[in-house]
Amino acid sequence: MDLIEQLTQIVGEKGILLDEADMQGFVVEWRDKFIGKARAVVLPKSTEEVAAVVKACASSKSPLVPQGGNTSLVGGSIPFTKGDEIILSLRRMHTIREVDRLNGTMTVDAGCVLANLQQAAEEVDCIFPLRIGSEGSCQIGGNISTNAGGVQVLHYGNTREQVLGLEVVLPDGQIWDGMTSLRKDNTGYDLKQLFIGAEGTLGIVTGAVVKMYPRPKYQQVALAAIPSVAAAVEFLNLARTMSGDQVTAIEIIPRIAIDMVCRHVPNFADPMPDKYDWQILVELSSSSTEDLSGLMETILEAGFEQEIVIDAVIATSEAQQAHIWNLREEISGAQKPEGGSIKHDISVPVSRFADFIREADIAVRKIVPNFRSVAFGHIGDGNVHYNPMQPLDMDKEEYLGHWEEVSRVVHDIAVSMRGSISAEHGIGRLKSDDLVLYKPAIEIDLMHRIKKALDPDGIMNPGKLLK
Amino acid sequence: MDLIEQLTQIVGEKGILLDEADMQGFVVEWRDKFIGKARAVVLPKSTEEVAAVVKACASSKSPLVPQGGNTSLVGGSIPFTKGDEIILSLRRMHTIREVDRLNGTMTVDAGCVLANLQQAAEEVDCIFPLRIGSEGSCQIGGNISTNAGGVQVLHYGNTREQVLGLEVVLPDGQIWDGMTSLRKDNTGYDLKQLFIGAEGTLGIVTGAVVKMYPRPKYQQVALAAIPSVAAAVEFLNLARTMSGDQVTAIEIIPRIAIDMVCRHVPNFADPMPDKYDWQILVELSSSSTEDLSGLMETILEAGFEQEIVIDAVIATSEAQQAHIWNLREEISGAQKPEGGSIKHDISVPVSRFADFIREADIAVRKIVPNFRSVAFGHIGDGNVHYNPMQPLDMDKEEYLGHWEEVSRVVHDIAVSMRGSISAEHGIGRLKSDDLVLYKPAIEIDLMHRIKKALDPDGIMNPGKLLK
Repeated sequence: MDLIEQLTQIVGEKGILLDEADMQGFVVEWRDKFIGKARAVVLPKSTEEVAAVVKACASSKSPLVPQGGNTSLVGGSIPFTKGDEIILSLRRMHTIREVDRLNGTMTVDAGCVLANLQQAAEEVDCIFPLRIGSEGSCQIGGNISTNAGGVQVLHYGNTREQVLGLEVVLPDGQIWDGMTSLRKDNTGYDLKQLFIGAEGTLGIVTGAVVKMYPRPKYQQVALAAIPSVAAAVEFLNLARTMSGDQVTAIEIIPRIAIDMVCRHVPNFADPMPDKYDWQILVELSSSSTEDLSGLMETILEAGFEQEIVIDAVIATSEAQQAHIWNLREEISGAQKPEGGSIKHDISVPVSRFADFIREADIAVRKIVPNFRSVAFGHIGDGNVHYNPMQPLDMDKEEYLGHWEEVSRVVHDIAVSMRGSISAEHGIGRLKSDDLVLYKPAIEIDLMHRIKKALDPDGIMNPGKLLK
Repeated sequence: MDLIEQLTQIVGEKGILLDEADMQGFVVEWRDKFIGKARAVVLPKSTEEVAAVVKACASSKSPLVPQGGNTSLVGGSIPFTKGDEIILSLRRMHTIREVDRLNGTMTVDAGCVLANLQQAAEEVDCIFPLRIGSEGSCQIGGNISTNAGGVQVLHYGNTREQVLGLEVVLPDGQIWDGMTSLRKDNTGYDLKQLFIGAEGTLGIVTGAVVKMYPRPKYQQVALAAIPSVAAAVEFLNLARTMSGDQVTAIEIIPRIAIDMVCRHVPNFADPMPDKYDWQILVELSSSSTEDLSGLMETILEAGFEQEIVIDAVIATSEAQQAHIWNLREEISGAQKPEGGSIKHDISVPVSRFADFIREADIAVRKIVPNFRSVAFGHIGDGNVHYNPMQPLDMDKEEYLGHWEEVSRVVHDIAVSMRGSISAEHGIGRLKSDDLVLYKPAIEIDLMHRIKKALDPDGIMNPGKLLK
């Protein structure tokens, strides 16, 4: 019996796609950046079916690409073009197995859509704190396999911090049931850590136990003008201390980004009455303090006194809160009509944030003298979307022709500050060459040793992350 | 040149101990539970010296025992009795390399004593949140290698959560410099996770970058009587929500423990006016809310209304706060004059806490009908010190003769609830047989595969954790 017959027997006729048209949604990256070819797409309905599929593939050493919501930004879930890979989609495994309010945990299938986890937590007056743009379609298994970040990392941590237990089908088809929900367990190597962020190269996550948190009932947002990038970091520490660690977001926004949003988003009014070079969006959240606007005012006043805040607007209604958040969220979209931009997903130590932007600007200017510097994002985590834009009078394609050169100097600077070339998005296919370029050989070697120990035949998502 | 000569050349005459009397403090467990024998104790002064020592040992496949403050509770840092092992003590590597207030991080040598880290953080108005009984002598390298827990895990997490970067000497003597201080970095497998909690079996931690937090300026403590063990868990959720996550400790204390403390600690007065079966110590901490006693009162009142609190005492002075904490801290000591107790370091899902105590009591009673149940500890983490005590009229040695039988049923019950047989203390030598007994074979196999991938000759702390 050939592999396809075996797989069909395991998942049934309805659980396997062989027709190219049917496979289309699974082999194409959502921005069309990567287009691959698969031998088949299998859609198992249970952990046991996943295990049987992997066993069948392992026995013929057939490569497997695990896939969640297919929202990767680095091509991690797209097969190559040879057409010999089997895509294993988790989308039919979407049961929330248990919500344990007292223990503050949820036990879920890997194929559950992130938004469904958020909703299940809300139903017991809790939250699941992972919030990312693709939450309506990405799956928790993919979030775990890529250690997804998002806007609330500052307060709650990355996906890694949300995972207490995992269920994984190993590359030989064995099921590892590591579904504990303990806060403390020191009985040997913490195996789940291996699979979190491994981008499906060590096994297939089929289930997880994740944490929930008390739901913050009150929220307050302000936009504050600051005298320098460095002041943002000082302000973060001030706000964190004065609020009793109730800062849930600090996002930095440059003047140029506000101007672009005002230009391109219909009827969008600048929330700030005057014009400053740098702004920060500050969000406080609490499950207890009702008077958050009083607290926000006190913190901002202390910022004025320390001369790390020069002007500020506090939202006085939910509409105004949304208005300030919109400003932040519209930046990416507003960049598009302004021409080409070269995107980076950088992190540096928070204390080096200002240095990074200054040095990167100088370096990029040497390549494209009149480029426009657009740097915004999660300053609280040291995670900058550093997206230098083309000069107004330059041809877009000519500018984008500098991508590699610009990226190289930007990454060089980040790495010289012990920063990361991929803070949130992972490596996938997009950055697997860069990984070898920037990681010390000893780390690459350690990764290969781990890979070999768990997946000696190299059938799990080959060519992704590690080449 | 033989190994001892090589080592002497690396660390100098003063850096090596060969005389049995000099080695005494390194080969004996502090409670005399394990007494070993070493070929030599080497005390390198730098990472490079550690690397050279390991290289020398690796070339002759000589086993190494890494040692921090030698405060292990499971014999993890004590050599066996054959006398062929080299102890590598980190105690001469005790430099705090950098304190980065803005980034909220410290970069430290592995041999720094925990209390010195706490102090260095306080000097910049921050805290390093790991607090354990041995903090005056244990070292951060040991804390990391055992993923130490303690009383503040509820709020800040285990040691694992405090580590951003690591420097490790690998079993072949290579130095892995993974000393990043990033909050977000998704560039491949998170290698540091391998070494955290590995009890020195995969390499020697020589340095680390750890997190600091805003210093809580205000603290409030109460002792509340609760109608049942289950109520403690309900109360935890209530307090967490109402305080905006400012609960830093919830410890459960049974009546029998209060009675013992009152009996054996001179002049100790019961803080509660009336006698109840179960009490909880509740601590709130905040860097912002001054009126924590008002908040504590509000939370306790809500507890009364929901009938999960039946009486309470709020500390009105620092002396009273200390008095309530003393009650908790004196329990272990007060157990001693009462006779033998069989100790366990159990964790279960928080929601199963009440079930665990009930079922364990029933099971132990079948072995020793009149035993006295003493269960106390970190209920917020589901981590119970379940220490059943001898009946008053039984011989101590006779009672302790039941240790294995009692431990077996207690561990069986914990594991049946997907709990842990070692929540905080690790495996070391004490529980390496239990590990094989209770861990699924697939986990033991995965651990061996990791061990083999990193330490193929098995020279790093052999016989600890994994047999």
